[in-house]
Amino acid sequence: MSNQSIINSENPDAVYSYEDLKNIFENYKKNPKNLDMSRGKPSDAQMDLSTELLTILNESDYISEENIDCRNYGNNDGLIEMKKIFADMLNVKTENIIVFGNSTLSALFDLIGISFIKGVNGGTPWNKLSEIDEIKFLCLTPGYDRHFAICEFFNIKMISVPMNENGPDMDLIEDLISADESIKGIWCVPKYSNPTGITYSDETVRRFANLKPKACDFRIFWDNAYAHHKLYDTDECLSDILSECEKAGNPNLVYEFTSFSKISFGGGGVVALATSTENVKYILDRISIQTIGPDKINQLRHVKFFKNADGVKKHLENHSKLLRPKFELLINKFEKEFSDNKICSWTNPKGGYFITLTTADNQASKVIDYCKQCGLILTSAGAPFPYGNDPKNNIIRLAPSFPSLEELTDAMEIFCLCVKLVYAENFKI
Amino acid sequence: MSNQSIINSENPDAVYSYEDLKNIFENYKKNPKNLDMSRGKPSDAQMDLSTELLTILNESDYISEENIDCRNYGNNDGLIEMKKIFADMLNVKTENIIVFGNSTLSALFDLIGISFIKGVNGGTPWNKLSEIDEIKFLCLTPGYDRHFAICEFFNIKMISVPMNENGPDMDLIEDLISADESIKGIWCVPKYSNPTGITYSDETVRRFANLKPKACDFRIFWDNAYAHHKLYDTDECLSDILSECEKAGNPNLVYEFTSFSKISFGGGGVVALATSTENVKYILDRISIQTIGPDKINQLRHVKFFKNADGVKKHLENHSKLLRPKFELLINKFEKEFSDNKICSWTNPKGGYFITLTTADNQASKVIDYCKQCGLILTSAGAPFPYGNDPKNNIIRLAPSFPSLEELTDAMEIFCLCVKLVYAENFKI
Repeated sequence: MSNQSIINSENPDAVYSYEDLKNIFENYKKNPKNLDMSRGKPSDAQMDLSTELLTILNESDYISEENIDCRNYGNNDGLIEMKKIFADMLNVKTENIIVFGNSTLSALFDLIGISFIKGVNGGTPWNKLSEIDEIKFLCLTPGYDRHFAICEFFNIKMISVPMNENGPDMDLIEDLISADESIKGIWCVPKYSNPTGITYSDETVRRFANLKPKACDFRIFWDNAYAHHKLYDTDECLSDILSECEKAGNPNLVYEFTSFSKISFGGGGVVALATSTENVKYILDRISIQTIGPDKINQLRHVKFFKNADGVKKHLENHSKLLRPKFELLINKFEKEFSDNKICSWTNPKGGYFITLTTADNQASKVIDYCKQCGLILTSAGAPFPYGNDPKNNIIRLAPSFPSLEELTDAMEIFCLCVKLVYAENFKI
Repeated sequence: MSNQSIINSENPDAVYSYEDLKNIFENYKKNPKNLDMSRGKPSDAQMDLSTELLTILNESDYISEENIDCRNYGNNDGLIEMKKIFADMLNVKTENIIVFGNSTLSALFDLIGISFIKGVNGGTPWNKLSEIDEIKFLCLTPGYDRHFAICEFFNIKMISVPMNENGPDMDLIEDLISADESIKGIWCVPKYSNPTGITYSDETVRRFANLKPKACDFRIFWDNAYAHHKLYDTDECLSDILSECEKAGNPNLVYEFTSFSKISFGGGGVVALATSTENVKYILDRISIQTIGPDKINQLRHVKFFKNADGVKKHLENHSKLLRPKFELLINKFEKEFSDNKICSWTNPKGGYFITLTTADNQASKVIDYCKQCGLILTSAGAPFPYGNDPKNNIIRLAPSFPSLEELTDAMEIFCLCVKLVYAENFKI
């Protein structure tokens, strides 16, 4: 390696000494840090906000509003008081809600698994269909890696549809699903999207609700995980997909989920599915075979602690006070390090859990690998894409929620160093 | 109907006035009771024994023995301290345990669903196999209706194998599964069996462990729901199936389950799967796609409350003090009403949740219907049999756990009346 400075001719401001960068990198490698920004986990301080959940019940707190002994079996659809909170959070009716345990992912996994074996609402099982043509899902990219992992597990062929700056490419979605009966679903994180932070516009939601899929058992998997997870005073507004579907004459088109995993405790929250009464009926029929009932005591805890949807929103404002400085730390650092040289770009989300940084083409995996060598774990390269394949190899998902501000400061030193070093290596002749 | 007394020539002691019985029955029908003995639900008093679970955690109780923050995501296999309790309860090693949420049924349903789509431990998916020959399970009868409901849901053909007085007919089981590759499983409740109360002998367990199924993906579903649910001081002893399977060179043959649903709270317990390390690995691989982790806080609650397997056993002794008088109330009543006339027989279990009463042939459904008309709900006729079809129509499952002693007294008046009335009707000329 030479001693010359690395100059990018396209961006004359991006002047670094390659050797300097390399030396700092080698020093980190000798004494690697122990930093993890790989997953969108709530921090200890966020969970501390819900500490009272651990102690909120007293020994006579086990009878529900409808006089159900929550300690015993039964009531597969959940408590009415828990449904009311979810219904208000999502702006739907309580009869459209089924309350699940602590993982949206499990409910999604189940819905898809059962569709293979039993079909959707009495339709042909996807297993039978897959003998003729493989089952396909549309995957907005970049998107949520765990959604894509479910598809891989079930051998569902994933078709990427790019997210634009304003949301998904609806023209492409409409074209694809109206032409191909083997496309059975689409994954959406419609608000403060994972990982781009985009909230779908009213027009986008309307177009989703008015989709005319060739497959009558096509479903939109509307994972509204960040429904109230704003970072600032002003919340972005997401239209209600259920009522739009109703208006469009497509009432059964959507399964909407939301969860307390990033409101109360990641491992001990409560989840809601909101969908049409017909879908609710089919799903409850299946659940009656599958379980002797959900943990209603945990539902009682959530009801007593949060009281109502306003309580949830106020609670999340306290989360945002903890999350906002972390997001701003990253954004400020990127502006300082990169706004002049323009060697990368990044999202500046107003809610959710992630920042997406776009490197020059073919550099993301190397940046992530270099960070790992310095002791900073990021989400794996390609993870936000089907089959882990980022076609331009330029997307990095950053999850600033879990580390402390001090750790994030260290992490960002490493990260910005590695972005620069990889850039310098690539554009050095 | 005549006024004559009803005499059963086979049983000369069974002398009743048909008209008397009929009159009492008609009076009940006019003022029906509101009694339910249909399900094996724990009573309020039993659940009161675990009231402290609601309040046992204090606000700093969220860190596990291995320093895991139980409020957050992860640790799909469960906490080591929870595994230790289960391991001691089942006499297995902690590495053979996966801790699930509050329903054995969900874990069973999942295992079977996934076997259809992905196969067992990398084998051919049952869906593919079912194109050639239908998938079959052996069902010990009478047995647990919810097991059979899972089979019906997945279109698994059920083959009945009778339970004898000493356990299942092992000769028939061995013959069937060694000859037919499409038999993929067998349901067992090996201790204080549902509903007969039988505990499998050591020899029976050994024969299970030494099965030579034609299908390499055959599994024994060993639902050890009543592992420590004795009614008297002396506990019946069940051999450990896992170590027997290991000895027999069949380590992967069995999935054993046990649950806190009938120890702590029906809707809020914890479940364990105990199985070979190879099975554990395959199942955890799948679970990593399916969930972001179990409710570890609820595991902490159980660990703090029960402390260890001895704590569980002592706790269940207090359950038995509540359950025993209920079982004895039924047994005493049956002895009083039926031991002379022999119009029915019944089991006298030493543990578990059920008494099975056998009527004369073709009378069970009518007895259950008559009880319903008097306001006593029993488990549906035929429920303990595949497809709800009791071939002799003579088995009635009685679940005495939930009603109070006073309610059970009323219920038994109605029940014995209806048994006699149906008998009298049938044998009257």
